[in-house]
Amino acid sequence: MKRQLKLRIRLCAYAALGPGKISLLQAIAHTGSISAAARDQGMSYRRAWLLLDEMNRALLQPVVQTQAGGSHGGGAQLTATGERLIVLYHQIEEKAEQAIRDELGELSGMLAPETPQPEA
Amino acid sequence: MKRQLKLRIRLCAYAALGPGKISLLQAIAHTGSISAAARDQGMSYRRAWLLLDEMNRALLQPVVQTQAGGSHGGGAQLTATGERLIVLYHQIEEKAEQAIRDELGELSGMLAPETPQPEA
Repeated sequence: MKRQLKLRIRLCAYAALGPGKISLLQAIAHTGSISAAARDQGMSYRRAWLLLDEMNRALLQPVVQTQAGGSHGGGAQLTATGERLIVLYHQIEEKAEQAIRDELGELSGMLAPETPQPEA
Repeated sequence: MKRQLKLRIRLCAYAALGPGKISLLQAIAHTGSISAAARDQGMSYRRAWLLLDEMNRALLQPVVQTQAGGSHGGGAQLTATGERLIVLYHQIEEKAEQAIRDELGELSGMLAPETPQPEA
């Protein structure tokens, strides 16, 4: 089932946490590399790096730790903070969806039957 | 207090409901006109029209009712569906924020002290 709710959490004036950053962190945990994670997410290395930098600036601790081997060559792994962010975000998604189940149900009842849309 | 949480609700494959559309509906209720509401929201009339059209297609009932006087000249007012969407969205925001208070608190504790950012 696709999630019906997408959450973006404002961390500070210049940084927010949403599904894109969480998905990138998960891909880093999975691939052990920022460049492989970026490819996996269909984004440029530079874009991935900027998203990580935004999180690192906003938080007390960095979210990713890189190993020797050059910025593209070395490995990367999540810090405890990075891992905790993923867990917290999923808890937030689940709790929020549960809390608004009635409202989502009412909204669903207001929807037109879904018809295939013409290609853009 | 600025909201820490931004919610986007998937209505169907091609439409979602987020703070931008809700804010537009509120502006229409307030101004009684799509073009005035678009100006108020800093968007083009075309953009406002597309957002309304997206909602109207996704829902059983349209969100806005227009009066005679031409597409730009006539007045516009929310239908019962449009008004209900606003109420539901705000209920969703409040319930979701309450449900995740603990997690938002933990996240806040992970944040670096906020420093002024250089101008972009």
